[in-house]
Amino acid sequence: MEEWDEIEVPKNVKDIFVEMKNTAEMMVDLAYSAALFKEREIAEEVLELEEYLDLLNYNLAVRAVLAARNIKEAERIASILQMGRAIDDISNAAADLAKMVLEEKLHPVVTEVILESEETIGKIVVSPDSVLVGKTLEELDLSTNTGVWVLAIRRGKRWIFDPDEDTKIMPGDILIGRGTRTALDYLKEIARGNIKVMPNE
Amino acid sequence: MEEWDEIEVPKNVKDIFVEMKNTAEMMVDLAYSAALFKEREIAEEVLELEEYLDLLNYNLAVRAVLAARNIKEAERIASILQMGRAIDDISNAAADLAKMVLEEKLHPVVTEVILESEETIGKIVVSPDSVLVGKTLEELDLSTNTGVWVLAIRRGKRWIFDPDEDTKIMPGDILIGRGTRTALDYLKEIARGNIKVMPNE
Repeated sequence: MEEWDEIEVPKNVKDIFVEMKNTAEMMVDLAYSAALFKEREIAEEVLELEEYLDLLNYNLAVRAVLAARNIKEAERIASILQMGRAIDDISNAAADLAKMVLEEKLHPVVTEVILESEETIGKIVVSPDSVLVGKTLEELDLSTNTGVWVLAIRRGKRWIFDPDEDTKIMPGDILIGRGTRTALDYLKEIARGNIKVMPNE
Repeated sequence: MEEWDEIEVPKNVKDIFVEMKNTAEMMVDLAYSAALFKEREIAEEVLELEEYLDLLNYNLAVRAVLAARNIKEAERIASILQMGRAIDDISNAAADLAKMVLEEKLHPVVTEVILESEETIGKIVVSPDSVLVGKTLEELDLSTNTGVWVLAIRRGKRWIFDPDEDTKIMPGDILIGRGTRTALDYLKEIARGNIKVMPNE
């Protein structure tokens, strides 16, 4: 855990909590992506995020406990610890999935299940003449405009996990996105250059 | 558990599994909705879904175990049971959140956390002159066109949870949706009648 000593953890209960919720949701999506594409690097990222989430949960508990000044407050603060534990349970489930990917013993039905769920995962290859190229994720706002949540970007040999809003899409990028099949197909058409405008233009 | 005796459970491993994944994801979203809006009925729905998920997980295990015919297959089938357990863990975490809502001891920070997450939950009131009125969820395809996933609809005094594709939106409906703040605000403008076309028109 030494590597986390230098990681900055948000300072107050709310910010730690928001970070935990976002991280756990990202972990579940990445774990399914790792299982679908048999990508060890994504699975390893999930396991790193699990350690980070444990650190966050520990910090949440310390700060929440410090804040209790009377019985009524203590009862409500117990709900923070409980919700922290629920989020931690979700992250552990994601880590279990990631470990299965690393063990390489996945049953083929697992990929079918991910593909046939209401929300699924897709790989979107960005062609050089797509309108996506050169724009930031903030400008594109793909989750509002296409219904696809970008979980990671494969650029050449490296991965960008949970990309920032100011990440620019480059030609040849492979986006890993979560959405319905319709939404993913729609974004694929835009990424191929077959649809020349974004819905917000 | 007797009430479940008449519930139809999908017949094969893959379909049970898909149903489990969809149900667990819906449970997490509904649990956060229940916490945000302090809606006991949503929390109770989450607890009912948890029982349904336990039933599915039991059926998954029985059918998966029956399918194993040699060691190699057994190893892979173990991954099905493991993933079933991971999904079950997620559903239990959602049920824990729902129980906290029913106990009415939520700390106010819990609502703030849900509101400030990357993906959040919103209530969308459908005005009589909105373009949404009279269209089915399938026609509207809100998740692709607005980035909002409709979890439930409040119609008069009753709730429609996880509405079907052929559910028609009615004036006065209150949609509970999951998405980014931008996506939710966008759908709210459409629901208020301020935006007169859907992006796919």
